[in-house]
Amino acid sequence: MADQASMSSLSLEAAQRGQKAAVMTAPDPDDPLAAKYGDAGLVASQAVSGRVWTRVEDLNASFSDKEVLLRGRVHTVRGKGKSAFIVLRQRTATLQVCLFANDTTVSKGMVKYASQITRESIVDVEGVITLPSKPVEGCSQSDVELQCRGIRVISRAAVLPFEVTDAARSEADVQAAAEKGEVLVTVGQDTRLNNRFLDLRTPANQAIFKLQSAVCQLFKDYLLSQGFQEIHSPKLIAGASEGGASVFKLDYMGTPACLAQSPQLYKQMAITADCERVFEVGPVFRAENSNTHRHLCEFMGLDFEMAINEHYCEVMEVVEGVFEHIFTGLATRHSRELAVVGQQFPFSMPEFKRLRLTFAEGIKMLQEGGYPD
Amino acid sequence: MADQASMSSLSLEAAQRGQKAAVMTAPDPDDPLAAKYGDAGLVASQAVSGRVWTRVEDLNASFSDKEVLLRGRVHTVRGKGKSAFIVLRQRTATLQVCLFANDTTVSKGMVKYASQITRESIVDVEGVITLPSKPVEGCSQSDVELQCRGIRVISRAAVLPFEVTDAARSEADVQAAAEKGEVLVTVGQDTRLNNRFLDLRTPANQAIFKLQSAVCQLFKDYLLSQGFQEIHSPKLIAGASEGGASVFKLDYMGTPACLAQSPQLYKQMAITADCERVFEVGPVFRAENSNTHRHLCEFMGLDFEMAINEHYCEVMEVVEGVFEHIFTGLATRHSRELAVVGQQFPFSMPEFKRLRLTFAEGIKMLQEGGYPD
Repeated sequence: MADQASMSSLSLEAAQRGQKAAVMTAPDPDDPLAAKYGDAGLVASQAVSGRVWTRVEDLNASFSDKEVLLRGRVHTVRGKGKSAFIVLRQRTATLQVCLFANDTTVSKGMVKYASQITRESIVDVEGVITLPSKPVEGCSQSDVELQCRGIRVISRAAVLPFEVTDAARSEADVQAAAEKGEVLVTVGQDTRLNNRFLDLRTPANQAIFKLQSAVCQLFKDYLLSQGFQEIHSPKLIAGASEGGASVFKLDYMGTPACLAQSPQLYKQMAITADCERVFEVGPVFRAENSNTHRHLCEFMGLDFEMAINEHYCEVMEVVEGVFEHIFTGLATRHSRELAVVGQQFPFSMPEFKRLRLTFAEGIKMLQEGGYPD
Repeated sequence: MADQASMSSLSLEAAQRGQKAAVMTAPDPDDPLAAKYGDAGLVASQAVSGRVWTRVEDLNASFSDKEVLLRGRVHTVRGKGKSAFIVLRQRTATLQVCLFANDTTVSKGMVKYASQITRESIVDVEGVITLPSKPVEGCSQSDVELQCRGIRVISRAAVLPFEVTDAARSEADVQAAAEKGEVLVTVGQDTRLNNRFLDLRTPANQAIFKLQSAVCQLFKDYLLSQGFQEIHSPKLIAGASEGGASVFKLDYMGTPACLAQSPQLYKQMAITADCERVFEVGPVFRAENSNTHRHLCEFMGLDFEMAINEHYCEVMEVVEGVFEHIFTGLATRHSRELAVVGQQFPFSMPEFKRLRLTFAEGIKMLQEGGYPD
C-alpha cells in the first residue's frame, strides 16, 4: 500500500509536470505481440543470452535494413494516436525510434506502452534500421532511424528534478525561442549541481568528461614516447610542500601531517634518484580561501620533471611537444566530442603555435603594443 | 674558507671509508691532452651545442668502432697505474669505460683524473666502442666497452651515506662471498629509507619503478581499448566513503571534511550519469592503525566500474582481460626490467591463467584438498 501511495504521489507530480499519470508496464495478454514489449525483470545475472547490443554512435546508412538491438535512455518520447517516436540516447549519441501500429509487427498496445515510458528510463529496443527521406532533426544519427519491433523497459525512471533535454539546451536555442514568443525551460546551476548525476547525462557534459579523459591520455602518451615514466608521490606528508599558510593539516595517528600542495619535492627526488624523466597526474591540495572562479582547493595536476643535459630549451621542447600532441589529438581523434560540446556551448578551438620569444623580442612587442616603459 | 673546511672534513671521511682523499679536478696545463678532461662548469643553459648523447642501454655490437658521447653516473672506478676502468651507469644499464695511457689519445694525467672521480658523480664520457675478447662481467652491456678519449665531471658527488653498488647486491652474492671467507658490505633498510633518493638508484629499484609505471599504462590502455574512460574523483569529501572509523578527518575552511577511503560513490555516480565504463588511478586514504606489512594508510588504487547488460560475467571478462594484458605486457615488453629485478631479488613470473569456478567446483576442490566440511 505504501508503494501505491508513493506511486500515486509520483504520478500526481508527473501529471503536474505535463507527463502522463497512468503508466502501462505490461502488455494486454490478448495482444498477439504481447511477447514483444513490457517491463523486463531486474537484471540479476540469471543467464548469458549471447545477445549483442549495437552502439548508437556506430549506426549509419550502412546499417540499412539490418536488425539491431540497442540499450539506451529514453531522451524524449512522443505518442500520437497510432504512432510513437522515441529519441534514444547513449552518451553523446541519439537516434529516432519509430513505432507505427500495424497488424504484423507493431500493435496498438505496443505503441501505447512505448508512449508511456518515462523519460530517462533505460530500454532495450529491437528493430530494423531504415533511411529516412530527410535527415532526422535534433538527433546525432540523423541519416538513420529505427523501425521498432520490440521494446522493454529495463529500468523505469521515476519523476526527475529536471529533464536532461532542458539541461542540454543551448543559450542560442532559448533565445531563438524567446524571439518567437516561446518560453523554453532552463535549469539553474544550483539544481544541476544538486543533481550532478543527472546533469552529467547531457551530451555536452558526456563529451567534456570524455575530452578530460582524452587530455590525460594524450599527455601521458606523449611523455611516455619521450622516455618519461609515471610516478605517484605521497599526498599525506609531514610538512608543507610549498608556502606554509595554504596547507590542509590533519592528524596522522597522533602526529601532525599535511596534504601535499604539489609533487615538487618528490619529482625532484625522482630526478636525483636517476629516474631522468618523470610525470605525475594526481590531486593537488591547496587550502586557499579564495572564492573566485579561478581557485580550486583540490585539482588534478598534470606535472612533469626532467633532467637537463645542457640548456633549458630541452624543457621548452617537451612543453611545446606535449601541448601540440594534446591539441592535435583532440582535433583529429576527438572532433566528435568537440562538436557535441560546441552544440551547447559554441566555441572555436585555438590553433596551436610553437612560439619562443627572446627577452629583446618581448620588449619590442610590448613597446609596439603601446607600453614604451 | 668554510667551503675548504667542509671539503677537508669530507675528504677525511672519504679517506676513512677507503676512498682516495686527494681529488684532481683540473688537468695539468702542460698535458697535451688537457682539453680532453677536467671538471665541467655548472650547466647553466649558456648554449645549445647540438651534441647528441647516446643511451647506454642502446649500445651493442653494432656500435663497434663508432664514436659516442655518454652521460651517466660513475658506478665504480678502479685505477691501476697506467690504466683505469669506470663502470658507467644509466638507470638499469651499465657499461665498462677503459682508459689505457698512451701517447696519442689518453694521457697519464687523464688516467689519474679518471681514477679519482668519486662514485655517483655524473660524467660526460666520449670515446670509441670496441668489442671485448670476452664478455664484460657485471655490466649489463657485456658485449661492448668504451675506449675513453675524453672525460669530464658534470657534477662531482660528495661522500655518500652508502654505496649504490653495496645497495645493489643480492643476498646470493653476499652469501657466496661469505662462503669464500669474504665480507661484503650490505645496507640496512633504515639507511636505505633515510636516503631513498640514493637507494632508488640501484638497477633493481630503477626497474621496479619502471614496472610500476608500466602496470599503470597497461591497465589504462586495456580499459581504454574496452570503451572505458578515465575519471578523477574528489579526495576531499564531506563524509566517510566507507566505514566510519578508519577515516582521516581535517578542517576544510571551518567545515569538517574527510579524505576519501575509496572512489566508490563517485564511480557509481559516473555509471548513473551514463558514463557506462570508467576507471580511476588515484590515491586512497585509510586511517587504519595497523602496523603490519599488509597495511598502508595511503596507496594507489587501480579501480574500475562498469554497467552490466545482463550478467556479472561481463565484469569477470574485463577483470581477466586486464590482468592478462598486464601480465603479457610485462613479460613481452618489459622482460629487461624483470630480469634486472631478478638479478637482485630472484623470482619467477607467475603464469597467467583464466580461471572460473562454479560454487560446486570450488567445494569439490576443497574436499579433495582435505577440507571435507
